[in-house]
Parts: sequence; C-alpha cells; structure tokens
Amino acid sequence: MSDLAKGAAWINGRVVPIADATISVTDWGFTRSDATYDVVGVWDGAFFRLDDHLDRFMASLAKLHLNPDVTRDGIADILHRITAASGLRHAYCAFVATRGMQRVPGSRDPRTCENRFFAWIVPWVNVLADDVVARGARMKIAEGPERISPNAVDPRAKNYHWGDLTAGLFEALEDGFDTVALKDGDGNITEGPGFNLFAVIDGVVVTPASGVLEGITRRTALEVAHSLGIPTEIRDIPVAEFLEADEVFLSSTGGGVVPIVQVNSRILGNGAPGPVSLRLRETYSDWRANGPLRTPVRGYREN
Amino acid sequence: MSDLAKGAAWINGRVVPIADATISVTDWGFTRSDATYDVVGVWDGAFFRLDDHLDRFMASLAKLHLNPDVTRDGIADILHRITAASGLRHAYCAFVATRGMQRVPGSRDPRTCENRFFAWIVPWVNVLADDVVARGARMKIAEGPERISPNAVDPRAKNYHWGDLTAGLFEALEDGFDTVALKDGDGNITEGPGFNLFAVIDGVVVTPASGVLEGITRRTALEVAHSLGIPTEIRDIPVAEFLEADEVFLSSTGGGVVPIVQVNSRILGNGAPGPVSLRLRETYSDWRANGPLRTPVRGYREN
Repeated sequence: MSDLAKGAAWINGRVVPIADATISVTDWGFTRSDATYDVVGVWDGAFFRLDDHLDRFMASLAKLHLNPDVTRDGIADILHRITAASGLRHAYCAFVATRGMQRVPGSRDPRTCENRFFAWIVPWVNVLADDVVARGARMKIAEGPERISPNAVDPRAKNYHWGDLTAGLFEALEDGFDTVALKDGDGNITEGPGFNLFAVIDGVVVTPASGVLEGITRRTALEVAHSLGIPTEIRDIPVAEFLEADEVFLSSTGGGVVPIVQVNSRILGNGAPGPVSLRLRETYSDWRANGPLRTPVRGYREN
Repeated sequence: MSDLAKGAAWINGRVVPIADATISVTDWGFTRSDATYDVVGVWDGAFFRLDDHLDRFMASLAKLHLNPDVTRDGIADILHRITAASGLRHAYCAFVATRGMQRVPGSRDPRTCENRFFAWIVPWVNVLADDVVARGARMKIAEGPERISPNAVDPRAKNYHWGDLTAGLFEALEDGFDTVALKDGDGNITEGPGFNLFAVIDGVVVTPASGVLEGITRRTALEVAHSLGIPTEIRDIPVAEFLEADEVFLSSTGGGVVPIVQVNSRILGNGAPGPVSLRLRETYSDWRANGPLRTPVRGYREN
C-alpha cells in the first residue's frame, strides 16, 4: 500500500500524503474557526452526488465571504486527482476553505486575509461503527448543551463549530449511548454530530425544518421516500413528539440511512430497526451503488 | 532580526520559527474546533497576570475534557522559553490545546484522541489599530448574528467558535465602523471579537454578567475601578440601556481599556473618550507596566 492509500491531500498546489497536509496554527480557519468545508463520499470508485456537494460548497463560500483562488471546476478536478492518486475506491473526501493568513500585519480585518483552499481524502469512515449500524444505534438527547442557534451561526454554511455537539457526545458516551442528538432553545430536536435526524410518525417521514445543516444525504433520504411513495414532511419536531415516533433514523454521508433503536430510555420497535428505516436504507444504498447520481472517478491507475 | 523575532512556537517538543508551526488538517482541533486557548500579554519584558491566564487555561482544559501531556508548571516554562527565544519584549503569547488525532482508526469517540498542546508568540497585536484607540472606537451592534448562547457553547472555556463574531465584524466593517458588538437572544449586550464590554451608567461601571468570556482584562478593569473608588456592577445590560450609557469602553489583553466614542448612530461624550474610561485606561496601563501582577520573562539573552 502506497503512502497515498492511507490518505492523500491537495494543498499548496500539490498532492501529498495526508500526514504532510498541515495548516499554520495562526490560520484564521483554526484560530477563529473561520472556514467552511464539504465532504463527498466515494463509493465503489464513484463520487455520490458530487455536483450537489460542489453546489453547497460554493454557496457556503458566498455566505461566509470566502473567495479562495479556485473555481468550481477546479475543485472537481482536484477531487478527482487526489482520489485517483490515492487509489481509494471507498473513501471520505473533504474539501475546505479557510480565511487564511492576514496580509496586513497586525490587522484584525477579515477582508484582508488571503483565503485558501485544500482537499483531502482518507479511507471510508462510518458515522457510527459497523456493528452499531447493524443492530441500530442508541441515541441520547443531550440534557446539557443545546444546538448553536441559527441566529448565531448559520448551520446551512457547513462549518466546524462543533463545541455543542462534542459536549453532547461526551455526555451521551459517558452514559453508555452510541451517539447524541441536540435540541434547540425551543425544545425542538435538531441534529447530531455529522448527521441529520428523521422520525417516522403515523407513516410520514418527518425531518426538522430549521437550525440544521441541509444535508445532501437528508435530501437523498427525502427523495428516496418520494420514490417509494412514502409521504414526507419538513417541520419542527418537539422532543416529546420525537420520543413518541414509530421509528427514528439518521442520515449522513458517512453511512447513509442508519436506524436508531433507542432514544433516551425509550426502546423503539422492540429494539429492532423499523421497516420504513430499512426500506429507505436499502434504496439509499442502491442509489449510492448504482444509477445517475454517481460520478465515476477519473484516472485510477488500474483503469 | 532573527527568524524567531518574527514569531516563535513550541510544538512537537521543540522551539521553531512561527512559520513552521503547523497542525494536521485532520486534527480535531481544526475539524471540530475542539480546542481551547489562552493569550497572555508580554509587556516590557514581563508577562501580565500569567498566573491568572494559566489558571483559566487549566479550568478550560477541565471543562472540555482535554488532557494534553503537559502540566501547569510545564506550560509556564514553555511560555518563558519561547518568549526568551524570540527576544520579544512586547508580544502576544498564545497557548493552545486541541483534541488532536484519533488513535482508533475510524472512531468518532473524542475520548480516544491524543490531545496535544502547543504555544506561540508573535509581536504585540492590538485589538484595534493605534489610531483607532487614540481617537476612540466606533462600534456597531450587529443586526445580523446574535452571540452563540452559553446554553450551546460555554464561553467561559475560551474557544475558537468565532463564526458569529466574524459575521458581525463583516457587517460592521462594511458599514464603516471599526468593530462590532453582539447581543444575545434576549436583547442584552454581550461582547465583541476578542474583547469584553463595559458601560458607565450613572457613575457605575457595568459589565455583562453572562454569555461572555470571563476576561482577565475584564477582571483587571473591575479591580482598577475598585482601586479608584469607582462603583462596579456585573449584570445584564439591555441594548437600549447600553445605547443610553454615559460612556462605553472595551477590555482586551490586546489593548487594555479602549474607549468607544460611537455605538451605532449614537455619539458618546461629543465623540471624545470619556473621563472614567480614560482614568481606567491610564491606571490599567500603569498596572501592566509596573507592579505586582507582572512576571518578568526568564532567560532573555540580553539579561
């Protein structure tokens, strides 16, 4: 296995092993978490929904006034290039823009920073371990942290402000759960670390309307539901209602549709993944493995 | 001027020029902003309130379950060492802990990451430019972003979640102001990018009680006020009341006490720094330049 098969990056204009991909400790992307990113999955040698991830990333750049020296097509080329260089056929491919370094010594004006772009790829990472996905995940709704309000930080510009999610994750893991969900200040369910949430309520697949990332996998799950004739709804879900749902599942690039079999002390479906969740999971996995939303990676050496 | 005089860092167990101080693009300190930091000022060859900054940093580590392989005394030694190596006598000295890299491949459990510590120093950086400080700053209260709620991310553990502050700063700068303040979800004033806020109301120096960093310079400003016999109060300040204050000033390690002469469209004190602000600024500057809160840097070559 070459070094690049453990992970590769495009940074400072060239392809390097992931271990050599670094940023300055004074980059504002770090010291102010002034950055945006996106992650596209590579499944069996093809990107899944690459155009949608690129569209969202370009929208995130605009929202945050980030303008690195790279075009949308240039980004796509870089992602193909590092993926081919790594040889990875199942992979997690991230691309990132940061505010960068200040050009005017001593200035605190973000407008005079030199924005930068880089990308990296590592072998596939599941949002939850395989055995957890197989049996269905146990999730705690955090009693401690609330999700950061969209009035403070716009969650639709994908960002690294995970302090609330990490604090919640510590709470849930210490209590023996697999993962965590956060509520907002009004007591509605929002999302978890790296995933959106869904509830199946009276046969309708429901997902929170606001205060969450507009996940590409969330969108796919809704489209899969439509394709199966299952009604969907995007609206606020009070925690009390969420706890009474027939089924609960999460959606994430790193795992697709993952059934949840326990929320707090409540066991759902006698502890087994529910039928709607499983149907959506199966069709999602089929779409990812086949069909029109795939963009085959160019330039693998074996091709 | 040696390379180290432009900035120095202690990272990976050695002292390096600041340009060589980097972290992995996959360090959770970056990809989840899962980090804490502190900044101590070096003024005329001495740290100001070093013990207080170290105390706060150790408290931040505990709050975030961060446990890098370094002790409080070890940190102090490192800060002396990089400062002496840089030769800088007026400097901004940062120390940082991150969640680090995951030891268990593919795991999303923050408890199995290898936490890390590093520190760096650069020539003094003012929170606002010298000419702005001299004339008094013009500040906008952002109409867009609110400050991240303490129910989501605890601001008392000093952190890099600056997305709200940066969005507010863009808004204020685009409108021609020097800097920005954010309100909370209840319409109280909170803080700005890198500083706490104070109002002088009916002769009392008032600063917000909650939703803000417990700044060391904020504490110093309150102590300075006590020493001058000026009454102080720590409580919520509604924006409407803040706008009617007799004086407004900010406090920051990078500038001490800085008068503000305009908030939104309201000119304070006929556009000149107010008398209470100026008295506090003068005494603060004296404390920083002299007296018992200074810790002389050990090991400068010239000594």
